[in-house]
Amino acid sequence: MIIVMKKNATEKEIQHVAKRIEEMGLKPHLSRGVERTVIGAIGDERLLKEDQIKAIASVDSVLPIMKPYKLVSREFKKEDTIIKVGDVEIGGKNIVVIAGPCAVESREQIIETAKAVKKAGAKLLRGGAFKPRTSPYSFQGLAEAKKATGLPIVTEVMDTRDVAAVEKYSDILQVGARNMQNFELLKEVGKSRKPVLLKRGLSATLKEFLMSAEYIMSEGNHNVILCERGIRTFCEYSRNTLDLNVVPAIKKLSHLPILVDPSHGTGKLDLVAPMSKAAIACGADGLIIEVHPNPEKAISDGDQSLKPKEFADLMRELKPIARAVGRSI
Amino acid sequence: MIIVMKKNATEKEIQHVAKRIEEMGLKPHLSRGVERTVIGAIGDERLLKEDQIKAIASVDSVLPIMKPYKLVSREFKKEDTIIKVGDVEIGGKNIVVIAGPCAVESREQIIETAKAVKKAGAKLLRGGAFKPRTSPYSFQGLAEAKKATGLPIVTEVMDTRDVAAVEKYSDILQVGARNMQNFELLKEVGKSRKPVLLKRGLSATLKEFLMSAEYIMSEGNHNVILCERGIRTFCEYSRNTLDLNVVPAIKKLSHLPILVDPSHGTGKLDLVAPMSKAAIACGADGLIIEVHPNPEKAISDGDQSLKPKEFADLMRELKPIARAVGRSI
Amino acid sequence: MIIVMKKNATEKEIQHVAKRIEEMGLKPHLSRGVERTVIGAIGDERLLKEDQIKAIASVDSVLPIMKPYKLVSREFKKEDTIIKVGDVEIGGKNIVVIAGPCAVESREQIIETAKAVKKAGAKLLRGGAFKPRTSPYSFQGLAEAKKATGLPIVTEVMDTRDVAAVEKYSDILQVGARNMQNFELLKEVGKSRKPVLLKRGLSATLKEFLMSAEYIMSEGNHNVILCERGIRTFCEYSRNTLDLNVVPAIKKLSHLPILVDPSHGTGKLDLVAPMSKAAIACGADGLIIEVHPNPEKAISDGDQSLKPKEFADLMRELKPIARAVGRSI
Amino acid sequence: MIIVMKKNATEKEIQHVAKRIEEMGLKPHLSRGVERTVIGAIGDERLLKEDQIKAIASVDSVLPIMKPYKLVSREFKKEDTIIKVGDVEIGGKNIVVIAGPCAVESREQIIETAKAVKKAGAKLLRGGAFKPRTSPYSFQGLAEAKKATGLPIVTEVMDTRDVAAVEKYSDILQVGARNMQNFELLKEVGKSRKPVLLKRGLSATLKEFLMSAEYIMSEGNHNVILCERGIRTFCEYSRNTLDLNVVPAIKKLSHLPILVDPSHGTGKLDLVAPMSKAAIACGADGLIIEVHPNPEKAISDGDQSLKPKEFADLMRELKPIARAVGRSI
Repeated sequence: MIIVMKKNATEKEIQHVAKRIEEMGLKPHLSRGVERTVIGAIGDERLLKEDQIKAIASVDSVLPIMKPYKLVSREFKKEDTIIKVGDVEIGGKNIVVIAGPCAVESREQIIETAKAVKKAGAKLLRGGAFKPRTSPYSFQGLAEAKKATGLPIVTEVMDTRDVAAVEKYSDILQVGARNMQNFELLKEVGKSRKPVLLKRGLSATLKEFLMSAEYIMSEGNHNVILCERGIRTFCEYSRNTLDLNVVPAIKKLSHLPILVDPSHGTGKLDLVAPMSKAAIACGADGLIIEVHPNPEKAISDGDQSLKPKEFADLMRELKPIARAVGRSI
Repeated sequence: MIIVMKKNATEKEIQHVAKRIEEMGLKPHLSRGVERTVIGAIGDERLLKEDQIKAIASVDSVLPIMKPYKLVSREFKKEDTIIKVGDVEIGGKNIVVIAGPCAVESREQIIETAKAVKKAGAKLLRGGAFKPRTSPYSFQGLAEAKKATGLPIVTEVMDTRDVAAVEKYSDILQVGARNMQNFELLKEVGKSRKPVLLKRGLSATLKEFLMSAEYIMSEGNHNVILCERGIRTFCEYSRNTLDLNVVPAIKKLSHLPILVDPSHGTGKLDLVAPMSKAAIACGADGLIIEVHPNPEKAISDGDQSLKPKEFADLMRELKPIARAVGRSI
Repeated sequence: MIIVMKKNATEKEIQHVAKRIEEMGLKPHLSRGVERTVIGAIGDERLLKEDQIKAIASVDSVLPIMKPYKLVSREFKKEDTIIKVGDVEIGGKNIVVIAGPCAVESREQIIETAKAVKKAGAKLLRGGAFKPRTSPYSFQGLAEAKKATGLPIVTEVMDTRDVAAVEKYSDILQVGARNMQNFELLKEVGKSRKPVLLKRGLSATLKEFLMSAEYIMSEGNHNVILCERGIRTFCEYSRNTLDLNVVPAIKKLSHLPILVDPSHGTGKLDLVAPMSKAAIACGADGLIIEVHPNPEKAISDGDQSLKPKEFADLMRELKPIARAVGRSI
Repeated sequence: MIIVMKKNATEKEIQHVAKRIEEMGLKPHLSRGVERTVIGAIGDERLLKEDQIKAIASVDSVLPIMKPYKLVSREFKKEDTIIKVGDVEIGGKNIVVIAGPCAVESREQIIETAKAVKKAGAKLLRGGAFKPRTSPYSFQGLAEAKKATGLPIVTEVMDTRDVAAVEKYSDILQVGARNMQNFELLKEVGKSRKPVLLKRGLSATLKEFLMSAEYIMSEGNHNVILCERGIRTFCEYSRNTLDLNVVPAIKKLSHLPILVDPSHGTGKLDLVAPMSKAAIACGADGLIIEVHPNPEKAISDGDQSLKPKEFADLMRELKPIARAVGRSI
């Protein structure tokens, strides 16, 4: 960590900061410039309380050098993490597509959708959130669809009290964007042995996103799958701004797989197909796409759901893109 | 709701939309313009599934007219809501200041702070989050400080499983910015009889903020106190951008009290005092301010905490501002 | 345009609004709902002064229905606009890549770069801004590079007083992001017969971006090439957030060609190649890429410039992506 | 400047960076940490080309320490700058209010408005932009209003070619938000002897805002008045988000006066009065407010213009706020 002193800092004030750094277990290293003194804190930066240093009146600013996360970082683990769910590998050479409706509405709806997306090439089935306390049977349709198609299931968990129940039935636990910094929930899924699909919060920086993944991993669950799903900007055309820049950025900073959700990420049907192609072109490990047999009558998100036929067309169009970047789908 | 048809929509497509509106229990009202047909849906807009209408291919866009919230709205309740916590009234003529440290570090720290902020004019004591399952005794210091000073207590609750325990000891339940859309938590505090202090999420629009309050109120708890605490923008100078525009906006749209947290809202010590004054000048019902006896050694947020002496000075400077807008402090 | 009246608007107030609409040359169409009256203004929406209607106290809100632009819209012109610059066609089946340094530093630098990018497949040469009044000879290097390679030239014009001079030497006039709403400059390039490359402002909405293009076109110059170059968000990792969502959005709304500038759009060398691929995958008509023979010694933007060898590698990798979306490069 | 090397940087790479720093005229100062080497560049940071250093492959990141501006900084000039326009002082103990319509529509409109705002306490008259080439006589009304009331005039200049003409008639030259980084225009007004009112761009950081002021000052014109007028965020309620945080921030970083424009800053009539009060409470030196005798018929911005009576009421309400912060109005 680099501590920049104020221009008029006295020798006594400089020594005070140096002493505080030592008290925290690091070694101060002074660099007296033309205009101001800069103090490097050498050692494990995690020992240094940034807020406390900033609270010293003679300190102008504090510049962290080390990344605040460790387990998620590419420096900690060089090779790409590949997460296995049954026969499916997420993060490997194959692009994995997760598809399904925003919410399970009926046994027929989910089974019909599951069969259609499987036929088109999807490898996992998404089916909204499972709320075992409020609607304990809502999960049955999804379970039957899994039985009928063999597709593993991704379900969102929204409450610490539900983790055990959801974990029992679901193959991947999803943490939604609105809960990305619900630390109690992160802790619970961190204790699970099921893979966790962590969606980026609407205004989460890349650092915060990775820190939330770190939080899960530090509880012992290293099977974290990241997912970009749109950020909040001033843009008025689409519901959110799908931020594909994080895909290559995460590939550089982290070994974890990164998926892209163009359905929520844009909230706009017309953008789902082109942004799916772009996601794969820039290195995403997979996609999550909303598919509904009858979007006009969907309980929610009908305006961003593909019909099974549109989904099948898209899957076909994605193949040459995947090949162009040395992957398959 | 106004449904704008695409320019080339056929008569059959227009009739299809009209029929869907009727199926949802509203009355369609066609308006054939020069370039396109616009359909008004007359009746209770809440019956209309916007996503489903948008999913119809011949529909260009959908413009909601009614506000999506009801209980929080000024139209539902004309007079300002005043929330009583012991002798303290929040939302009335008096400006209420809540003060205290970010976290309870020791019995001495919290009691010393409580006495100091009470003497300076604070009416409630804040003391971070209470996590009864992980540190069951952490609340004791806060309870003693309450006993010593008589100041009611505001504590954050972060987990649905903790609501009952926190509710038992705390006078106001705080829902943090990161949990503003943790709907399971909102539901639980909505069932409580204790007032809820709801902090605005970092990227929450005004509508989303009010919708979260509506969610709590619809569970039966009408004692909701709103709190602006900074939004995320491109600004690099302060940690967040304190958005005071919402203060007069909320006063117009809602009857609920609105507080401002300039400590988290700016994350910058120098900005706390001027932005506190600005908050009161534009109509806030109170402030939440971080105070720590020794910010250099605070466990967290030392860089934005006032010392007791600075807090007392600020309280003095706020008095003429409050008077200037016809209030007292 | 749809005018939503306030809930308690009187009959007299409703009639006042209706009369104002008539005065502006449109026909009012009343729709009396359960909660409020909504007034449609039928006719040419461009005649209606939105600000004036909003200024009426009994009006709650005003919802425009027609798009504010016309010439740029896909509704005005169905087929894609193809802009010819010498032999090069922008907006056609071929993906066009514009490459070159951020600034012309020397005769050698620009000629060397021009030869390298031409060999790799670039079709036009970019060379920063030409400021004829402050450095009248700075353009010479670029002119020689054009002569040596045959590559047409793209140059930024920054001052209304320079348009005539830049137009004389340059094949495409570039308007930079910081001048996207410099209306006097837009007017001048609108009078030119040379194609204009219009870069999106850092916080321009899609509507504002298209409105600036409309402004140029309404002066008579229909050869406008749009260019996405990154928006300003809270993101800390890259300098800007390249917003590829606008590519398919513009393709839908407008007939104009849209290019992408991944160099400025990300400001990050590592992101240039993957985001270039993504841009083409989602439908961009071309790219603008910074190339410098020795980025470590570039006058500016060295940190986002590719070396000629890296550029050649990227061009090779783009080919299969272009093919995958039915285009060539 | 602090250069952070990549974790695996070799000794040779470290020496290369050190050499480059020396070549640029500064002294490298190495600090070998546990994980990585950090190099301080001691000397005049302005000599260091940040982009070039970043372009070196072994460099992880570059952290500037010195502020990029000088003339605008509080360190360069301790005392507040007071700018005199006739008898009016901007930046002193008195709060200065500039008022008037968005555009001059007629001789009567502007004279009537000028008289009304003068009576209410405004010290300067605003009157939109003056475009001498397109409407050479449009300025006459404003000139007459000045003659009739004695109020000095603020006019926007939008084209480098107009600076001389506008300067001749106007007392303060305004540079609009959309031109904040129109560097050619900044250069021209920098050569003028008339004070310049510089409006913050919609997505300008504080640093960029001050850099634009620096640009003007470095041309010789030290009479720069800053003006906050709202930034672009995700907020949907008001047109822009008035960012009052910059008021105390600028007071700390710079000696220049800072005004606030709540009319454009919010774009919402209801917010003008409360945000005006807040602006003064947090330290602004003045306000710019749109006033129109008949907003319903204003050529533009009618929806955010106060009527003369509302303006007079506001001026009365501002007095006790000004007094509360030790100033007058």
